[in-house]
Amino acid sequence: AEVKKIAVIAGDGIGPEVVAEAEKVLKRTEELFGYSFETEHALFGGIAIDQKGTPLPQETLDICQKADAVLLGAVGGPKWDNNPKELRPETGLLGIRKALGLFSNLRPAVVFDCLKDASTLKPEVLEGTDLIVVRELTGGIYFGEKYRRDTEHGQEAVDTCAYNVSEVERIVRQAFEIAQKRRKKLASVDKANVLETSRLWREVVNRIAPEYPDVELEHVLVDNCAMQLLRRPASFDVIVTENMFGDILSDEAAMLTGSIGMLSSASLGEGSFGLYEPVHGSAPDIAGQNLANPIATILSVALMFRMTFGYADAADAIERAVADVLNAGHRTGDIAVDKSKAIGTTAMGDLIVAAM
Amino acid sequence: AEVKKIAVIAGDGIGPEVVAEAEKVLKRTEELFGYSFETEHALFGGIAIDQKGTPLPQETLDICQKADAVLLGAVGGPKWDNNPKELRPETGLLGIRKALGLFSNLRPAVVFDCLKDASTLKPEVLEGTDLIVVRELTGGIYFGEKYRRDTEHGQEAVDTCAYNVSEVERIVRQAFEIAQKRRKKLASVDKANVLETSRLWREVVNRIAPEYPDVELEHVLVDNCAMQLLRRPASFDVIVTENMFGDILSDEAAMLTGSIGMLSSASLGEGSFGLYEPVHGSAPDIAGQNLANPIATILSVALMFRMTFGYADAADAIERAVADVLNAGHRTGDIAVDKSKAIGTTAMGDLIVAAM
Ligand SMILES: CC(C)[C@H](C(=O)O)[C@@H](O)C(=O)O
Ligand SMILES: CC(C)[C@H](C(=O)O)[C@@H](O)C(=O)O
Repeated sequence: AEVKKIAVIAGDGIGPEVVAEAEKVLKRTEELFGYSFETEHALFGGIAIDQKGTPLPQETLDICQKADAVLLGAVGGPKWDNNPKELRPETGLLGIRKALGLFSNLRPAVVFDCLKDASTLKPEVLEGTDLIVVRELTGGIYFGEKYRRDTEHGQEAVDTCAYNVSEVERIVRQAFEIAQKRRKKLASVDKANVLETSRLWREVVNRIAPEYPDVELEHVLVDNCAMQLLRRPASFDVIVTENMFGDILSDEAAMLTGSIGMLSSASLGEGSFGLYEPVHGSAPDIAGQNLANPIATILSVALMFRMTFGYADAADAIERAVADVLNAGHRTGDIAVDKSKAIGTTAMGDLIVAAM
Repeated sequence: AEVKKIAVIAGDGIGPEVVAEAEKVLKRTEELFGYSFETEHALFGGIAIDQKGTPLPQETLDICQKADAVLLGAVGGPKWDNNPKELRPETGLLGIRKALGLFSNLRPAVVFDCLKDASTLKPEVLEGTDLIVVRELTGGIYFGEKYRRDTEHGQEAVDTCAYNVSEVERIVRQAFEIAQKRRKKLASVDKANVLETSRLWREVVNRIAPEYPDVELEHVLVDNCAMQLLRRPASFDVIVTENMFGDILSDEAAMLTGSIGMLSSASLGEGSFGLYEPVHGSAPDIAGQNLANPIATILSVALMFRMTFGYADAADAIERAVADVLNAGHRTGDIAVDKSKAIGTTAMGDLIVAAM
């Protein structure tokens, strides 16, 4: 089979540990399914700041651009939190999204049966929750012009939020297509009663909706969506929204599942290229102690197989292996009810590899 | 006693019904405590669009400006949803906030004991939740320049988010002062890792924090706050944030209490003047049927007494009366477990008046 190139960015905190387990899964996939992967490691985030003086070295970008997909662990940590903007891990994150043209962030929020009780929501409310937030990732207030100026009321800071028709159209079309492959419901979230960008967003959604007649569309105001996610999470299928609203709502949606340590995400551009990463952060407090849960990163590999490589068989095998290991009662500390029986990062990775 | 002038804006949907009950409470307060109120009704929102051709007639603004406080029912409804911007109820809402200088919106999110089960959160998570969101109300992306322009990628829409030092300082000081009178914890919410306005916001917060050494301050990123509200709602005391984040987070916070039909809010400017209104909307589906719950509006009167007039005795009496009526088992349809025993809007108002 064709060799697939994967850029591996371990990053900071628990990143290297969880990525190491995901790499075991890559290796096992080669043995079991005959696929071939060529991995190349790259520096990114805090570690890149420390070693190269910038969160996103050109070399890292080159490695990603030559690859078919990127696997990312996690970036950031208190060490770099007070750095000036250009020396912060987040700046690298925004830079890599833009440079790789990753305009779409998919965050599935599903409830793992064995973790139902970990949610702060009542089980009967959560029942059947299986939604995906499609977040626009390279536009809006994240990337608009930012500046300061002096005024009679002291310094003023300005952020600019802009969207053009093409930017809205490509993400909304993708969301409609995802909905067509799922339960065929799309909630488009905006603040059209206040924002001009939201009014443009809604116009575009309404103009292209007739091309997807099998998808049931609703427009939801962002404040109302923050409420409805709590009231009726199971009623959502696909939620599409702009960058800033997506940042907030995807975190709310992830948290309400109670499964945040297990959720993976994909950032996609045109074509099949994608960047895959766990939803959780770099957890510096438990880094380097073999305590982190590698499952979200391992499931990010499954997502990569499914979405970028079309390796559904291997993706299925990984997801089934994860389910089997959990059903057999194995837990890392973050998801263990009885913490004294928790297993470590490497043990969890080994069990999943063995179960494949 | 001095006569207090109250501008009464019934508005749309269930607005007139709930406001009528609140006016009974005003009258009963006069009898019981010897205070005097002079109410003047004003048209606002959809009804003003229908009768005067604008959501915020100059006459309404004049009545509010001459008053000591404003009591607002609710505005909006599907009838006006597709109107052009200047003929929409929301435009009136933004206009009245700006014209009256109401830069601060206080939204207490408390759990009513008798409604604990109405929340979708587990009771043990909700236990002790009593927080208040202090939302900046006249700045940010709501009021920045908005426009469209043509680009090679189709039309582009732009919203501008701006904050100056004075705007941030006055709302943050107010939040610190509120925290001092409560559990002395303040969470300042921003997106300082991305937005310039948030970086300015955080600088101002950090500069003035030493003046409130008794208040424990934490900075929380907005996406993380959306999660933490779900995970540890009871740990929050006062949350202060900018306009757009406040819109989203205050609705999330209100919904998680399960008591949204009971929550009141205050919008304040410099001095003691304030606009008071229920958190819930105009509920056009149940309007005119004597089904609405008047409690949030009645509690808005109590909030007005406390915050604008300093009538703590009357505010206490109202809040106690509401608690007594609920404890006696009386419920409107929205909060009734057994809907067949639900009472109507006027009956609920009468019971509360009698219990004062
Ligand atoms: C770290 C931050 C810049 C980033 C974002 O806001 O996009 C993060 O919250 C995320 O959701 O990936
Ligand atoms: C109706 C709308 C303009 C308004 C807002 O976003 O401020 C509402 O959601 C609110 O919170 O009062």
